[in-house]
Amino acid sequence: MAKTTTKESTKVQLLEAGTEIMLEKGYNNTGIMEVLQSTGVPKGSFYYYFDSKEDFGMQIINHYDATYSEKLKVLLDETKSPLSLLRSYCEESMRNLEQNACRKGCLIGNLSQEMADQSEVFRNRLQEVMLSQRSIFASCIANAQAKGEISNTMNASDLAEFFQCGWSGAVMRAKTMKCVEPMKVFSQILFDHVLKCSA
Amino acid sequence: MAKTTTKESTKVQLLEAGTEIMLEKGYNNTGIMEVLQSTGVPKGSFYYYFDSKEDFGMQIINHYDATYSEKLKVLLDETKSPLSLLRSYCEESMRNLEQNACRKGCLIGNLSQEMADQSEVFRNRLQEVMLSQRSIFASCIANAQAKGEISNTMNASDLAEFFQCGWSGAVMRAKTMKCVEPMKVFSQILFDHVLKCSA
Repeated sequence: MAKTTTKESTKVQLLEAGTEIMLEKGYNNTGIMEVLQSTGVPKGSFYYYFDSKEDFGMQIINHYDATYSEKLKVLLDETKSPLSLLRSYCEESMRNLEQNACRKGCLIGNLSQEMADQSEVFRNRLQEVMLSQRSIFASCIANAQAKGEISNTMNASDLAEFFQCGWSGAVMRAKTMKCVEPMKVFSQILFDHVLKCSA
Repeated sequence: MAKTTTKESTKVQLLEAGTEIMLEKGYNNTGIMEVLQSTGVPKGSFYYYFDSKEDFGMQIINHYDATYSEKLKVLLDETKSPLSLLRSYCEESMRNLEQNACRKGCLIGNLSQEMADQSEVFRNRLQEVMLSQRSIFASCIANAQAKGEISNTMNASDLAEFFQCGWSGAVMRAKTMKCVEPMKVFSQILFDHVLKCSA
């Protein structure tokens, strides 16, 4: 049992170190050696846990998705205002990016931009994650429509797609400008003019 | 004269081949050899035209920006409806992406996502291009406000930022989903609910 736990924690350690490096440098530019060096895990161990660099990349996406999906579930808390939950999500994302000096951003957006034309294996998985996240945002928006917080003249899934387009672009622009102004501007117009009662 | 023209055209040929490869593979993953092979330019010639791979990357951005800025000037044609010009820009972008089988997308967005955390040289130049493009979109929106096509209760520059956040995210998502649906959804909600008379 102790051995399994250690093995699992070494694997998670590699996945988490890989995530942090890949968030800044992308998939192609991240070296396995760099990940091993940052964790102190011996060179020979990598292929015990991962079949290949591609397998490592895919497991990083799965690990990130599992963690992030858990975080997104907060948006479905039925005891709270769905619209306030979405606002809080935006505000927290801005605070997180600011705390990271506007570096890193979103792994799914970063890898999508980098890998969509290069690997069908990555593209398919990234698309699945995008659609699964969209369905959570769509449920939150549908809840807000049911409570009369957002006009129900628009399809919740389209509004979720609209939100995710804008938010992922805003994060990318914030990274490039090294300030969260694009996220502030996008969310302000979004909540004042799109996600409202009489849209 | 003829010699200068040939030199210039070889340089442009390298820049354009580099742009096409970099649009799909990003900066780090593009090899100089691959660019040379695709153009038939001899290996020794590259450093006649470019100081380094970084210089090549920067000149690719400048070349792309010069071409794209020229294309964006159409948005400022005062004989036409500014709002219709912006709609046409979106429709043309969608057609272009579809014609490219939803590959490549926007070089500025792609390189921003990849390079913003890795190189201040790239980041600064990409930010300049983003802001210069934003000022063209903002002028188009301000023209539409002056003509009463868009409510003037919002700042034109903020609306341009909002548009660029959403549009760059929509292109990224279209590349990942390999269909232009995200661009369709984003532009439809944008024009129906944000860029309108009584926003």
